[in-house]
Amino acid sequence: MSGRLAVVGLGPGDVRWLTAEAEAALAAADALFGYGPYLDRAPVREGQRRYPSDNRQETSRACAALETAATGNKVALVCGGDPGIVPGITAMLAVAARVGAPLGHDFCALSLSDNLKPWSVIERRLDAAAQAGLVIALYNPISKTRQWQLAAAFDRLRRYLPATTPIVFGRAVGRADEKIAVMTLQTADPSGADMASLVIVGTAETRLVSRPGQAPLVYTPRSATA
Amino acid sequence: MSGRLAVVGLGPGDVRWLTAEAEAALAAADALFGYGPYLDRAPVREGQRRYPSDNRQETSRACAALETAATGNKVALVCGGDPGIVPGITAMLAVAARVGAPLGHDFCALSLSDNLKPWSVIERRLDAAAQAGLVIALYNPISKTRQWQLAAAFDRLRRYLPATTPIVFGRAVGRADEKIAVMTLQTADPSGADMASLVIVGTAETRLVSRPGQAPLVYTPRSATA
Repeated sequence: MSGRLAVVGLGPGDVRWLTAEAEAALAAADALFGYGPYLDRAPVREGQRRYPSDNRQETSRACAALETAATGNKVALVCGGDPGIVPGITAMLAVAARVGAPLGHDFCALSLSDNLKPWSVIERRLDAAAQAGLVIALYNPISKTRQWQLAAAFDRLRRYLPATTPIVFGRAVGRADEKIAVMTLQTADPSGADMASLVIVGTAETRLVSRPGQAPLVYTPRSATA
Repeated sequence: MSGRLAVVGLGPGDVRWLTAEAEAALAAADALFGYGPYLDRAPVREGQRRYPSDNRQETSRACAALETAATGNKVALVCGGDPGIVPGITAMLAVAARVGAPLGHDFCALSLSDNLKPWSVIERRLDAAAQAGLVIALYNPISKTRQWQLAAAFDRLRRYLPATTPIVFGRAVGRADEKIAVMTLQTADPSGADMASLVIVGTAETRLVSRPGQAPLVYTPRSATA
């Protein structure tokens, strides 16, 4: 019996962001595992078993998927965004695409979750990124149990970045309830973010390009001065 | 006459990494513009005009695409990776997926091209990223006219990172001539990279997971200590 486990990135929510490779991996599976809301996004196929599980059950989910593969099944473990095995569009790229080209030059992805690392490490990374002129994509900006981190991050970034620095809030990008908002570091309201949000913080070089009757575009030029 | 211009990300090379949205945007176009090697990757469709152009002709290519759209055509401007309008899989995610999960925690994308920014800015960003413990994806590591930058970057990073830090060279990922190599900061040979390469530099926390008869996996744990 030769089973197989594929770890498949669905992208951030719009089924049109699924790659052909990810689609093929899903179609070939006998059994699908995943966090419930992600699994709901995978197309339903006749004869395929589906095992949704809850958030924070990563370990038991992974074990169950491995055990099912070990007994000869073709298993797909589905993830949002990009899990790094069958790659997917990651949320920062999808949110960026909605507003223009905020990631037009060097950028970083930082998680504001201090579940697996101390807040002091996150502060050090925020300081370094802002001082080095990197655009910052903030993953996991807020959750039910982590309410103060995004406000604290904005406060920290205000030490280095002008009040006019563009900020993009992208919520549920690619889904029916998508909401994209462009603000500045001065006006950004942390309570506008939740677990489904991705926040992009520009640099001093990031510009807004206004458009009549539409939200402005956000653009970070590739060039930089010393 | 109502034309339209879509800027479409093809992903890094494997047609299976094209998203359904990108595929639909290509299929709907009357005319395709793009750098020749990228355009060659877009599926050929009857009745569709194709306008390949050379590297470093970005401005004239963009003008021609806009003019064609302005006269009522549906135009697609195709790009490798992720251009940020119709998003695509970007090279660092595809290379990362080949070797495991090197981007498992906070990371940044830095371009080593000093065409549009001074080398001092790049040095500052390398310093900041390494000191803050970010995994670093190096875009444009080398080109015909920029031969010394990758070696200089490795030298710079050796100030902060252990000699054992894993380095991934990903060349032409997803294409027939794909070549992936895992080395360390001590053994990495800059001459192994070229214009089609993407280089990932781990952190002190990045580990190799050896496998019998296969190249090791590269894994950066999500956790970090202070």
